Amino acid sequence: MHRLTGLAPTVALHIPWDKVDDYAALASYAVEQGVRLGTVNSNTFQDDDYKLGSLAHLDPKVRQKAIDHHFECIDVMAATGSRDLKIWLADGSNYPGQTDLRGRQDRLAESLATIYGRLGEEQRLVLEYKFFEPAFYHTDVPDWGTSYAQVAALGERAMVCLDTGHHAPGTNIEFIVMQLLRLGRLGSFDFNSRFYADDDLIVGAADPFQLFRILFEVIRGGGYGPANPDGHSDVAFMLDQCHNIEDKIPGQIRSVLNVQEMTARALLVDREALDAAQSAGDVLGAHGVLMDAFYTDVRADLAAWREERGLPADPMRAYAESGYQAQIEAARVGGTQLSWN
Amino acid sequence: MHRLTGLAPTVALHIPWDKVDDYAALASYAVEQGVRLGTVNSNTFQDDDYKLGSLAHLDPKVRQKAIDHHFECIDVMAATGSRDLKIWLADGSNYPGQTDLRGRQDRLAESLATIYGRLGEEQRLVLEYKFFEPAFYHTDVPDWGTSYAQVAALGERAMVCLDTGHHAPGTNIEFIVMQLLRLGRLGSFDFNSRFYADDDLIVGAADPFQLFRILFEVIRGGGYGPANPDGHSDVAFMLDQCHNIEDKIPGQIRSVLNVQEMTARALLVDREALDAAQSAGDVLGAHGVLMDAFYTDVRADLAAWREERGLPADPMRAYAESGYQAQIEAARVGGTQLSWN
Amino acid sequence: MHRLTGLAPTVALHIPWDKVDDYAALASYAVEQGVRLGTVNSNTFQDDDYKLGSLAHLDPKVRQKAIDHHFECIDVMAATGSRDLKIWLADGSNYPGQTDLRGRQDRLAESLATIYGRLGEEQRLVLEYKFFEPAFYHTDVPDWGTSYAQVAALGERAMVCLDTGHHAPGTNIEFIVMQLLRLGRLGSFDFNSRFYADDDLIVGAADPFQLFRILFEVIRGGGYGPANPDGHSDVAFMLDQCHNIEDKIPGQIRSVLNVQEMTARALLVDREALDAAQSAGDVLGAHGVLMDAFYTDVRADLAAWREERGLPADPMRAYAESGYQAQIEAARVGGTQLSWN
Amino acid sequence: MHRLTGLAPTVALHIPWDKVDDYAALASYAVEQGVRLGTVNSNTFQDDDYKLGSLAHLDPKVRQKAIDHHFECIDVMAATGSRDLKIWLADGSNYPGQTDLRGRQDRLAESLATIYGRLGEEQRLVLEYKFFEPAFYHTDVPDWGTSYAQVAALGERAMVCLDTGHHAPGTNIEFIVMQLLRLGRLGSFDFNSRFYADDDLIVGAADPFQLFRILFEVIRGGGYGPANPDGHSDVAFMLDQCHNIEDKIPGQIRSVLNVQEMTARALLVDREALDAAQSAGDVLGAHGVLMDAFYTDVRADLAAWREERGLPADPMRAYAESGYQAQIEAARVGGTQLSWN
Repeated sequence: MHRLTGLAPTVALHIPWDKVDDYAALASYAVEQGVRLGTVNSNTFQDDDYKLGSLAHLDPKVRQKAIDHHFECIDVMAATGSRDLKIWLADGSNYPGQTDLRGRQDRLAESLATIYGRLGEEQRLVLEYKFFEPAFYHTDVPDWGTSYAQVAALGERAMVCLDTGHHAPGTNIEFIVMQLLRLGRLGSFDFNSRFYADDDLIVGAADPFQLFRILFEVIRGGGYGPANPDGHSDVAFMLDQCHNIEDKIPGQIRSVLNVQEMTARALLVDREALDAAQSAGDVLGAHGVLMDAFYTDVRADLAAWREERGLPADPMRAYAESGYQAQIEAARVGGTQLSWN
Repeated sequence: MHRLTGLAPTVALHIPWDKVDDYAALASYAVEQGVRLGTVNSNTFQDDDYKLGSLAHLDPKVRQKAIDHHFECIDVMAATGSRDLKIWLADGSNYPGQTDLRGRQDRLAESLATIYGRLGEEQRLVLEYKFFEPAFYHTDVPDWGTSYAQVAALGERAMVCLDTGHHAPGTNIEFIVMQLLRLGRLGSFDFNSRFYADDDLIVGAADPFQLFRILFEVIRGGGYGPANPDGHSDVAFMLDQCHNIEDKIPGQIRSVLNVQEMTARALLVDREALDAAQSAGDVLGAHGVLMDAFYTDVRADLAAWREERGLPADPMRAYAESGYQAQIEAARVGGTQLSWN
Repeated sequence: MHRLTGLAPTVALHIPWDKVDDYAALASYAVEQGVRLGTVNSNTFQDDDYKLGSLAHLDPKVRQKAIDHHFECIDVMAATGSRDLKIWLADGSNYPGQTDLRGRQDRLAESLATIYGRLGEEQRLVLEYKFFEPAFYHTDVPDWGTSYAQVAALGERAMVCLDTGHHAPGTNIEFIVMQLLRLGRLGSFDFNSRFYADDDLIVGAADPFQLFRILFEVIRGGGYGPANPDGHSDVAFMLDQCHNIEDKIPGQIRSVLNVQEMTARALLVDREALDAAQSAGDVLGAHGVLMDAFYTDVRADLAAWREERGLPADPMRAYAESGYQAQIEAARVGGTQLSWN
Repeated sequence: MHRLTGLAPTVALHIPWDKVDDYAALASYAVEQGVRLGTVNSNTFQDDDYKLGSLAHLDPKVRQKAIDHHFECIDVMAATGSRDLKIWLADGSNYPGQTDLRGRQDRLAESLATIYGRLGEEQRLVLEYKFFEPAFYHTDVPDWGTSYAQVAALGERAMVCLDTGHHAPGTNIEFIVMQLLRLGRLGSFDFNSRFYADDDLIVGAADPFQLFRILFEVIRGGGYGPANPDGHSDVAFMLDQCHNIEDKIPGQIRSVLNVQEMTARALLVDREALDAAQSAGDVLGAHGVLMDAFYTDVRADLAAWREERGLPADPMRAYAESGYQAQIEAARVGGTQLSWN
């Protein structure tokens, strides 16, 4: 996919799904293939021990097991040179009364502090929030506020991960992007689309205008850079999708193209004209400046950009014509992640 | 209403709706009537100057006007002995591009800091959040996370106000109650009921079980006390309702009785049995302990409690039979507030 | 607005807001101004008698009063030559138990039958549904299913009105458009945008892609024509918006241009390629055909279309430069309606 | 479970999960165990052929396969003496453009008509609707309106199934119960609880007051009887839950007890007083009559009812003490169904 688009040069790992014996060799192999290894994702939702929680579990033995798993992830990060440890927790409850909401929050804070203490100087902890599911009554990190409060208590290298599918209906996601960038706590993005719940569809498929607004705030808030000396920007951008009925690789090609096209549109916003209209209190005028950029067709220019770089003008067609039969059926729970910076 | 129920001994003021010439006299009159003056609410949503914002407005003149209004409220607080300045802002926008989300947040922070600096040692600033409305695209304080981030930057006497109707559908409100109490930032409650939006119905009318869960977390988190030496607890409890089709006074009697009854049920939870079931991982057992309290009929005991205090056993009937013709038609925007501690 | 865009040649009336002594004279005046009078809207939500309902009220006197009002509207229709009587009801309740849901539905059916019986041969009754508001617990016509069941019981000239803002969050509105066209019951559209509730923003402002999908189903289902001999198509298209913070006339110009632009994009869908991809089970390919049309910039072509007709290429600028000072402040409840066919 | 509660005497079958060689023998075995076989559920969502649809699929071969499966289910019904064929379809799409919404609706109508034509005189077809999932962009039967329009076109023995978890947030479910009973089309209920999506929790666990209101409308609309000569009432009541973290059998005992307790409360509503208050326009009074019944504690009376019948007073405890180790882990997709009448 990177070969056809020139985008998404980083591959996130998921432990234990992507466990190998030699991570240094894996990193070298990635470089040979033209990509790098990126964020390491922990997993505390498949083991039966975690049925009633992991880092927030009442039983100290289960918590320690979950903490040890994160220590193992940090070891992997050291071997692969990954910067970010991303934590998404399935912790929560299904029934009121099942558990003590407050106690869980305190235990979560303690477990996170222990993990954070193990991180190297250049490493970061990124805590993802999710409105609901798999727990139905409450999740222990349901919103950006909780994630922010938890990571702010840890230290400067603890950040929030925003997954675009993890909010209540009607939530203004670009506002949260703005706020987290303002607070210096936007660590990473999981991109996907949703109509109702955590649908994990191709990014940009459900509400392209929302994607545009999100990327406009990313740009406005400095989320795209300047890149650090090591080639990473401060925010890691990942896909977190499931391709249930469409093929996975073209689904991901489509996704990164959608993000690229929307980024191009967001960059086209005439910021000077926008400021002028906003300052004049010209509601329709300011709105119109934004919409002008959104309605501009950038596809031909991006095709030209690709051709200049020796990439196919139409990556979707190039893939279809390549004969490469990637019949990978991604089960929902195993949605893979790709990242680019 | 206080006379018939023995509850809700405090009356919140709304400036400028409740403006008088002599606030000391008003406070005395309140005491004569058996109640006290409580929270002072500012209002920056009726003046036409605020059409595009108040504390977050781009124009420094409008911001200063809004700040001056809050200074005036602080003067009223000094005269009435009120502890809390409650700020709910209508600031926001209707159209993407209309305004700069980030700039507004920064200006809001600055305005709040100026107001906070004027508060007396015993006074608090309480910032309310609201998911949507009157602005439709974005509100400047849409969620508890934003309110928390803003007040945490101000200082220890800046708190969050939780209005039960100001959340996205499906939001677990008791979780937020727990979190704000845990963070020491739950300043006050606006009680009401909603089915869909900010319906401002009688508290407990739409989802009594949710009210029960909220009050259980209030108790569990220490929200009811211990009361301070001055008779206030740390959290101020207010009604913020509109009585469009029912009479206002019986509507409020019904509301405070609902809160009292639910508090009684929440106090009946067998905390020891709950802890035991939770510790044993007995999901249904723990849920059952909670439900047992919820399904207990406390009404006869509370009627007896009232009679012991010389209050009518059935305040709703007592009011109906009193002949007191309170035909106050509350317009929606003018929903009154009553508080009790 | 019609003069600047060549669109929206019909003006809907709202009784009693638009009451005049001589409707024939009003109709002539409209023709002189280059427009026609269209749908007549009844109003049973402002009179205090209707506080607990109108056509569904328990009291036969109130029901008769509401029926008589609709008879009056039918008289207006005869005088103006209007085809459609549009009924939106504020009927509902705020509290469970307040009213008998079933009895109201039966009385509503009876009242509607009485009104329907008074219609002329060429006239239609169009029943609008609304998910919530002003009633908060239940509305008597909350969804398209109820409106459909009610009008199907009346006869062939009873239709459903779809207001794009009157659905639960997450509702697939284009599906309902498709279904109502399939059932032959889509009478009219009220266009606007919403982020959360019945926001009544400029159509296309909140989710342009949704507007595109809706208009694609309108075209696919024959909603745009063929026009009847009298110049009307079977579906009446109206704006139902409130312009609270922006000027009303440019807000409406922007709205009709948005609908025109989206219609153009929807007409650009390569239906043959779409059918082929769908038949082949090519999920991404079929989706791509639709998106290609959506992402095509049609604005220059539509500007040329306007210039060919002697209209300004940029109606928004032409209005701004016209010096026409329409400082009409539309109160929310008084959102005006314009229609085009 | 039936032995401990005296409730839920019918077991629904799911084909092919519950396939046996001899259905007559299965029915006899059920009778020996004190229960009967009830509704037969078809399944067209597991076979890979149905990835893009079943009864609405574009390919006539796939449609015929799905129709044949339903013919097989009807054969099972003949052997077991079941009355209802319940159809829930996973048909839908994930991406706009993926499929033709209208064509699918027409093909669905045709397939259903074919299946309906095969039913015996005493048999019924019951069509379930679901707001979203597993398809994310559209489902072919998303709401009661679509199910109603489809079954009304089939004939008198075609009905709607209402699953309490299959609605958009904020939907007034008891209104739909009322409407379907009014229209004579409420065929069956799938009971469960949800906080956000199709959570499939224990019925009554998330919003007991909603369950109360639903059961009040069931009673008011005649949904509980009079029972037919064959012992069935017209509406079939089933559980459709998943017990992911709690044990399944006690989860189901808790569920049927919750329905029984709520039915008892709903029967306690003083209908005469309610009518009087409603007729007088006494909003708070009428609401109060309803709430009085809801807040009445019926548990002791129901325990006595059980003891009179030789059943354990506390079925949950009786089960716990029975030593019966039912460690059935119900996978989500395989949530079992139990029914009672």
